[in-house]
Amino acid sequence: MNIITYPERSTWNELLKRPVMNTDTLRDTVLEILNRVRTEGDRAVMEYEEKFDKVTLQSLAVSEQEFADAEKAVSIELKAAIMLAFNNIRTFHAAQKFEGKRVTTLPGVTCWQKAVAIEKVGLYVPGGTAPLFSTVLMLATPAQIAGCKEIILCTPPDRSGKIHPAILYAAKVAGVSRVFKAGGVQAIGAMAYGTSSIPKVYKIFGPGNQYVTAAKQQVSLRDVAIDMPAGPSEVAVLADETAQPAFVAADLLSQAEHGTDSQAILITTSEALLREVTGEVQRQLEQLPRKGIAEKSLANSKLILVRTMDEAVDMVNEYAPEHLIIETKDYQQTAERIVNAGSVFLGPYSPESAGDYASGTNHTLPTNGYAKAYSGVSLDSFIRKITFQEVTQEGIRMIGPAIEVLAANEYLDAHKNAVSVRLAFNPQNKL
Amino acid sequence: MNIITYPERSTWNELLKRPVMNTDTLRDTVLEILNRVRTEGDRAVMEYEEKFDKVTLQSLAVSEQEFADAEKAVSIELKAAIMLAFNNIRTFHAAQKFEGKRVTTLPGVTCWQKAVAIEKVGLYVPGGTAPLFSTVLMLATPAQIAGCKEIILCTPPDRSGKIHPAILYAAKVAGVSRVFKAGGVQAIGAMAYGTSSIPKVYKIFGPGNQYVTAAKQQVSLRDVAIDMPAGPSEVAVLADETAQPAFVAADLLSQAEHGTDSQAILITTSEALLREVTGEVQRQLEQLPRKGIAEKSLANSKLILVRTMDEAVDMVNEYAPEHLIIETKDYQQTAERIVNAGSVFLGPYSPESAGDYASGTNHTLPTNGYAKAYSGVSLDSFIRKITFQEVTQEGIRMIGPAIEVLAANEYLDAHKNAVSVRLAFNPQNKL
Repeated sequence: MNIITYPERSTWNELLKRPVMNTDTLRDTVLEILNRVRTEGDRAVMEYEEKFDKVTLQSLAVSEQEFADAEKAVSIELKAAIMLAFNNIRTFHAAQKFEGKRVTTLPGVTCWQKAVAIEKVGLYVPGGTAPLFSTVLMLATPAQIAGCKEIILCTPPDRSGKIHPAILYAAKVAGVSRVFKAGGVQAIGAMAYGTSSIPKVYKIFGPGNQYVTAAKQQVSLRDVAIDMPAGPSEVAVLADETAQPAFVAADLLSQAEHGTDSQAILITTSEALLREVTGEVQRQLEQLPRKGIAEKSLANSKLILVRTMDEAVDMVNEYAPEHLIIETKDYQQTAERIVNAGSVFLGPYSPESAGDYASGTNHTLPTNGYAKAYSGVSLDSFIRKITFQEVTQEGIRMIGPAIEVLAANEYLDAHKNAVSVRLAFNPQNKL
Repeated sequence: MNIITYPERSTWNELLKRPVMNTDTLRDTVLEILNRVRTEGDRAVMEYEEKFDKVTLQSLAVSEQEFADAEKAVSIELKAAIMLAFNNIRTFHAAQKFEGKRVTTLPGVTCWQKAVAIEKVGLYVPGGTAPLFSTVLMLATPAQIAGCKEIILCTPPDRSGKIHPAILYAAKVAGVSRVFKAGGVQAIGAMAYGTSSIPKVYKIFGPGNQYVTAAKQQVSLRDVAIDMPAGPSEVAVLADETAQPAFVAADLLSQAEHGTDSQAILITTSEALLREVTGEVQRQLEQLPRKGIAEKSLANSKLILVRTMDEAVDMVNEYAPEHLIIETKDYQQTAERIVNAGSVFLGPYSPESAGDYASGTNHTLPTNGYAKAYSGVSLDSFIRKITFQEVTQEGIRMIGPAIEVLAANEYLDAHKNAVSVRLAFNPQNKL
């Protein structure tokens, strides 16, 4: 861990820099895989599964029998925990339903927005060391609430061709329509273009490694929408002298165990806290099974001592963390001043793990400073708002003459004419 | 115009195809300009202005004097029309303000969303034949309502180094902070990276030619968010035998005059209407100053006769038009069944021009079928929703044990531990 004491503002930019992600070098590899999936469909997906996931698949779709087996394989304890998380996620996202207001901008001119679900969405859940059933819940639950008709999920199988039972169980609970055994670039390509097994979707969601990220970027240029750009996970903890060092240390470590490129930052006004946290981190680290990963990512982590809470808040807003934990005396007032963050955790009993799993908020959040321009996944991510307008004959008399002037000044006479023919129209005397 | 009678569903896909946009071939040119702007800043922007806009600039920023001159140069009539449009756009977008609800998912677990403006946004307004002051209003008005602190605008100057006065007037009215003389790829680069004159922004909005589109895509991969992918403008008119042929013809033509690649489609259940519209289009076309452009884009336009209104609605949803005009007897019921469109215009007195200029809705909308996954620009486009959660000691007792199970099953023990240290904590007896 790097300890930085009272850094000058002029150094913040450098201090808060993320590791540079450059997926340009992957472009050719990714384009080749995407192109083969587009032209050859299932056959290409299966070949890449063989090559990258070392598995020979007869069929990409998960069968009803596999779902039934998965349900049996998941422990009662885990099922109950999944249901608790699912219910909280559902409660919070259901409360985000949009009700558009009808607005009369001038007499006879009524405008409104209507929320409509994206009809077909594709969720990607990576493989690797952890079975990310929590991500299944975070993506499928709002999709189901939004009313998406087709919610498909792609995730790589293990070498025996199986999907982890907790992933299948969570998919069933959260309303996924169909699950397919496909990972990496080939899964993204299949959802972007469609194959005979895997339907084309309109928007792709979910995390992944740098290849998946590059593939999502590539297909988003023309074929399909994506949730947001991705980067390594990160947390900033904003704490004062009232914070519990053991809590702060545990929060930094829970970020550090994600991967060696994870970012964990403490910004504090208390030198004593900073010192105690350092000790606590070492003490807790010894107990962790993923100690190796956590140690590596801690090497990049920063404990930053600043002079005032104002400065601390400015630094947080400059950094724009994916996760922000505020453990200060007046954390509610401090929270009011946060303008750049993905998800904020307030007070001593709100660890990041709460939002990662079960408080009800979404854990798919903007990393890499993208919180300055992007929101995390929410119900909004699964809908579009279509605008409607109804102009009556009275209405067109109110706004028509202005439209004629505006259109004429933009040299768009047919635009003007579409109003003029209506203003001139006499229902008694057809044109 | 191409008349298609009773097409089979199996042919719809081909029938509704858009012209293919391929910006890949522009990639090297665009990357070179972006790269020079990133490394050389203002100097590169000025050089490209000289090369592409044939103008030698001393300064990129529009001066107070230029704003004052513009105000004098705009006619009273046009000012009044701009104010009417601005007021309606403001009324409709102000009604979109988001008020998050606090949701208690379980006792002691409270979650909410808070809308926060994107602090710095960049608006791009293209040059060319028409001074698009309407686009200035459509982008700056919601940015101002959202509370964006810095709203900058880039637009190419004419050969004398001037910006059209109506653009400067609209910018002033709608709350733009600063206007810069820069167009094309160099303007997008300047807003994405920042130069000594032009500040870096977090999100870029606005239309442009294929170079601007390619540049926006490129910078969106890493540096900055963008409003949405772009394509040629398009309208679908859905009409039955009750529609006025003169209105339908005027609506098709107002789309056709945009550019030679514009798409205008009529989908109707009435053969008589289709025939009459054909005649009306020819008659009105003769009157148009932009007849040449309109004629070329009409060559690609389609008048499609279908058997039933159900089929017509399905076809509209399959096409997912940027603009949809519904001129049918029961247009309100028909509108309820629309799930894929950018903006919908209801009834005989709602031409597309109304929404292009002054009804209050936004005219920056998803083209090219992107309406299946994207919304048009709205107040949402200028904010982020940050999620907050506060878990109390009671709350962590409610959800903590489930989080421990979930984290353990994802092999994330530090996540589990962040809960465990809190559950074990006794305030009387510090850890």
